[in-house]
Amino acid sequence: MDPRPIGVFDSGLGGLTTVRELRRLLPGEDIVYFGDTGRVPYGSRSRETIIRYARQDVAFLRTFDLKLIVIACGTVSTTAMEVLARENSIPVLGVVAPAADAAAQVTRSGKIGLIGTQASIRSGAYEALIHARDPMAQVISQPCPLFVPLVENGRFRPGDVVIETVVGEYLAPLKRRGVDTLVLGCTHYPLLEEVISNFMGPDVVLVNAGAEGARAAAERLAFEGALSDRTEGGGCRYFVSDRQEDFSRLASIFLGWDVTGQVGKVDIGQY
Amino acid sequence: MDPRPIGVFDSGLGGLTTVRELRRLLPGEDIVYFGDTGRVPYGSRSRETIIRYARQDVAFLRTFDLKLIVIACGTVSTTAMEVLARENSIPVLGVVAPAADAAAQVTRSGKIGLIGTQASIRSGAYEALIHARDPMAQVISQPCPLFVPLVENGRFRPGDVVIETVVGEYLAPLKRRGVDTLVLGCTHYPLLEEVISNFMGPDVVLVNAGAEGARAAAERLAFEGALSDRTEGGGCRYFVSDRQEDFSRLASIFLGWDVTGQVGKVDIGQY
Repeated sequence: MDPRPIGVFDSGLGGLTTVRELRRLLPGEDIVYFGDTGRVPYGSRSRETIIRYARQDVAFLRTFDLKLIVIACGTVSTTAMEVLARENSIPVLGVVAPAADAAAQVTRSGKIGLIGTQASIRSGAYEALIHARDPMAQVISQPCPLFVPLVENGRFRPGDVVIETVVGEYLAPLKRRGVDTLVLGCTHYPLLEEVISNFMGPDVVLVNAGAEGARAAAERLAFEGALSDRTEGGGCRYFVSDRQEDFSRLASIFLGWDVTGQVGKVDIGQY
Repeated sequence: MDPRPIGVFDSGLGGLTTVRELRRLLPGEDIVYFGDTGRVPYGSRSRETIIRYARQDVAFLRTFDLKLIVIACGTVSTTAMEVLARENSIPVLGVVAPAADAAAQVTRSGKIGLIGTQASIRSGAYEALIHARDPMAQVISQPCPLFVPLVENGRFRPGDVVIETVVGEYLAPLKRRGVDTLVLGCTHYPLLEEVISNFMGPDVVLVNAGAEGARAAAERLAFEGALSDRTEGGGCRYFVSDRQEDFSRLASIFLGWDVTGQVGKVDIGQY
C-alpha cells in the first residue's frame, strides 16, 4: 500500500489521454499532472533541448512526494527516458516499451507502422524495442510533424479536408507497404483515431502508446504492492506553464470531464 | 555616424524576412539576429508568457553594444512593445506602427483586413494604430493560428490543397466583406504571399509588416544620423535557442542566402 500520488507529465495536453486511462484503471489513485504549455511542442526540437526541458518537468513534479512518474509524451519517452530513469530514485516509466510490447504481440504479418514526432522517429527508440521483442518484425516509420498543431487547433474530425489530406499523405507509404499494426507513438494522436482508422481500413490495429503507458504503470504498481488502498475517489491536480484558462478549455476535449478551477501555474524555467 | 550593430529578434525564423529587407535597404549595417527556436511559437501563448520571453530575448541581444532593436515579430510587437520600449535606453521599434501607417495610406475604400496570430489579434494593437491614423477605417481581423506551423513545415506553395484550404477558410470572411488592403501582421506570412494573393485577387494590396518594420528602422537611423558610414559589406550574426543545423536549413528559404556555420547557440532561459 502506498498512498503517494502518481506524477504524469507531457509537453502539453496530449498526456491527458494517459491520465484518462490511468483514472479508468486506478480510480483510487491521486495524480499530479504537469503540461509544459509554455514551451509546447517538443517534437520538433533537438535532443538536448528536449532533455533539458524534461529534467525541469521532473524537478517540478518531484516537489511532490510521488511514488512513480509516467512520461506521458512520446517525444520525451523516446529521447530522455534513460537519462530521467538514471537520475531519479523513484521509477520513471515511459510509453515506448509498453507500446512496443503491444505492437509485437498484436501483429500477424510482422509489418508494423510507426508514427510520431520528428524527434521520436529520429531517436529510433520504438524500432529498437520492437526488434528486441521480435527480431523479424519490419518497422515502417513516418514522422508526422503537423499532427500536433492540427489537433491543438481542433482539426481532428472526419470530413475535414485539411486533416484528411495530411493523414493521407503521411500514411499512404505505410498503407502501401501493407502494415497490419500502427503504433500511435505520440499522446496527441488518439484524437485522430477515427480519421486514421478510416484511411488505413478496419484490418489495421491501432496501438495507443499513451494508453499502453498507463496500463504498464498500473501493472508496475500492482506488482510492487504500491497501489493506494482506495478503490475510488482519487484526486487529480493539474499544473501548466502558461495560462490556466487556455488549458482548461482544451483539456475537457482530451479528458471528457471539466477541470476549470483545478489548474495551477508554474514558472518551469526556475526548476 | 554610428558603427554599432542593429539587433533583430523573433520567436523563430519569420523575422528573417525583416533581416532580408534591412540588408537590401542598408547593406553596410551590421546585424545581430536572435531567433527563439527553442520556444517558438509565441502566437498561441498568453500575454504574460510572451512578455517574459521577449524580455529575455532583449536581455540577450543587449549583451552586444547595439544602436537599435527591431522586434521582427508581430506577436511581440503587438503584446510587449510598450514594456520593452520603456525598459530600454536604446530605441526599440516594432512592426505594428509601420504596418498600420502603410495600410492607412494604401486603402481606398477604408476597409482593411488584418491577419495575425491569436495573441496579435487579441491585443487589438493593429486596430488601435490604424484607427489613430484613420478614424473612419473599418478593420476586419482574423487570427490564423495554423499559418506558422504550416509555413515552418514547408506548406506555403500554390497548388497545395492543405494550405489553400486553410487560407480559404481564414480569409473568406475578409474577402466577403470586400477589403481592399490586407495587413500580413506576422513575419511568417510573406512566404504565403502568392497563395494569399491568388485567393484575395489582384485588387487587394498586401501590406508586409516585417518589411515595413525594416523600412521604419532604416528611416529612424537616417533621421538620427545614426547610420554606419559604410554603404556595403555589413555583417550578420545569427543566434538561436535550439539546434543551429535545423535553423540554418530553413533560414535559406527565408533569406535567399546560405547561413551555414554562422549560427550560434544561446541558453535563453539564463537571461
